[in-house]
Amino acid sequence: MELLRSIGVKFRTVNTAVGQEPDPKRWEKALKAKPKPKLLIVTSTLSNPSGATLKEEWRLMLVEICRKAGVPILEDDIYGDLLGRARPKPMRAFDDGSTVLYVTSFSKTVAPGLRIGFALPGKWMDQAADWQCRQTIHGGVPPEYVAAAFLRSGRMESHLEMLQSVYAKRRELALGILSRELPEGVRVEDPKGGYMLWVRGGRAQGMDQVAKQCLEQGVAVVGGGIFFAEPPKEACFRLNCARATPEDLARGVGIFCRVLKVVLARTGGRKNRTLA
Amino acid sequence: MELLRSIGVKFRTVNTAVGQEPDPKRWEKALKAKPKPKLLIVTSTLSNPSGATLKEEWRLMLVEICRKAGVPILEDDIYGDLLGRARPKPMRAFDDGSTVLYVTSFSKTVAPGLRIGFALPGKWMDQAADWQCRQTIHGGVPPEYVAAAFLRSGRMESHLEMLQSVYAKRRELALGILSRELPEGVRVEDPKGGYMLWVRGGRAQGMDQVAKQCLEQGVAVVGGGIFFAEPPKEACFRLNCARATPEDLARGVGIFCRVLKVVLARTGGRKNRTLA
Repeated sequence: MELLRSIGVKFRTVNTAVGQEPDPKRWEKALKAKPKPKLLIVTSTLSNPSGATLKEEWRLMLVEICRKAGVPILEDDIYGDLLGRARPKPMRAFDDGSTVLYVTSFSKTVAPGLRIGFALPGKWMDQAADWQCRQTIHGGVPPEYVAAAFLRSGRMESHLEMLQSVYAKRRELALGILSRELPEGVRVEDPKGGYMLWVRGGRAQGMDQVAKQCLEQGVAVVGGGIFFAEPPKEACFRLNCARATPEDLARGVGIFCRVLKVVLARTGGRKNRTLA
Repeated sequence: MELLRSIGVKFRTVNTAVGQEPDPKRWEKALKAKPKPKLLIVTSTLSNPSGATLKEEWRLMLVEICRKAGVPILEDDIYGDLLGRARPKPMRAFDDGSTVLYVTSFSKTVAPGLRIGFALPGKWMDQAADWQCRQTIHGGVPPEYVAAAFLRSGRMESHLEMLQSVYAKRRELALGILSRELPEGVRVEDPKGGYMLWVRGGRAQGMDQVAKQCLEQGVAVVGGGIFFAEPPKEACFRLNCARATPEDLARGVGIFCRVLKVVLARTGGRKNRTLA
């Protein structure tokens, strides 16, 4: 988003949240507003940062709405493999190649250091190949070789199951602490996959203060402001549970909750209206 | 150039050619013209496609002219390592970090498949790191590992000497045939390094025709039009001698000369004024 904004791209956003049904009318309205959007970017599964996964029935609907409106969808499925068996079909599966440009990566599953992924560009195949060629000719051969060898080894499935199981335990641990320790009016939903938790509630003004004080105590949480095109109306934080040991994670989440309580009490967050 | 043009960047060009002394007045004029240039891009050694290498005394001058004009230089040194001992110091060596942003790559020396290089961004260090981070976070780890292992092995120097010697033989072979077979008014200079030869002369209209007919006979030459911001005033071709065996190279250059003769005779190229 930062990169696109720096070359002058303007954004309009449609809210998503775990458990929230998308409102077709809002989608249609956003697509019809002037100036007409050139592209809809959707992280369809375990969206960053909300963790929301679009239900399969809504995927079909959204593809149809966009096809009718003539607005292409860039479906970013980078977290899809982390959802396991509950994973819905990608939006690309409901398309004939006219509307959805699918991209994904091995960065969140095999290794971030590979810096490779793949795309199913649909009718933009030639254009995508042309752009790839102009930008870098092609990706690095050693990472492609490594990824190909790993995929051929047949170990991808069990590797994903391992990741799913490890991340589920981390989420469960963190969610348990959060459910007990979060101040009133602040909430978190279980995204049912991945390693990110999205905590929301309290006055947005306290957000940077919380992130700063946490960092001073050795805990890095991402203040949610950077994920929005417009400043958010309430405080929100993304907690990453991927790498910390269970002990560090428990300690870190505890610190986060205590800092949040103190800062929110100071900024009057507990009296703040909770936004749905 | 294509990539930059596609996002709306406008170009102004300053001619370079093997053996041609740069004219400081032309550089100054180009830098002062309105709208003021934001950046001067220079392939200082074995420039693609002309093969021209800027003499060391002119490097200092150009850095000073640009510093005074407040126009940063992007020095692309991707072919520098192919020149061997005769290689001048990069323009970056004549700068204090205020004017020259130096970039290079291992693509033309170690292996194109690595897709890695490095930059000395001078005063733009933080900005460059920020952009790298926004675009790809970082490069691929496996290629960096391979490149680091190769550099650590101490074999880079002898590898470069081998490349220089192989390419010198290829150039000599191709230049020998060209000197005998090129039609009147068409010329080629020895760039003294690298694997590219830049052939110029005859009417620009014949250019695409020559490239097309060569390709029909299994010889790929690049019609020079793509290297210019404005259509060139005479025909020009880039011959790549890097990969063909000596036998294939000799056969290919022969085919190119014959096609050129036929097409130029047809388009009246021999009567065309030779442009310096």
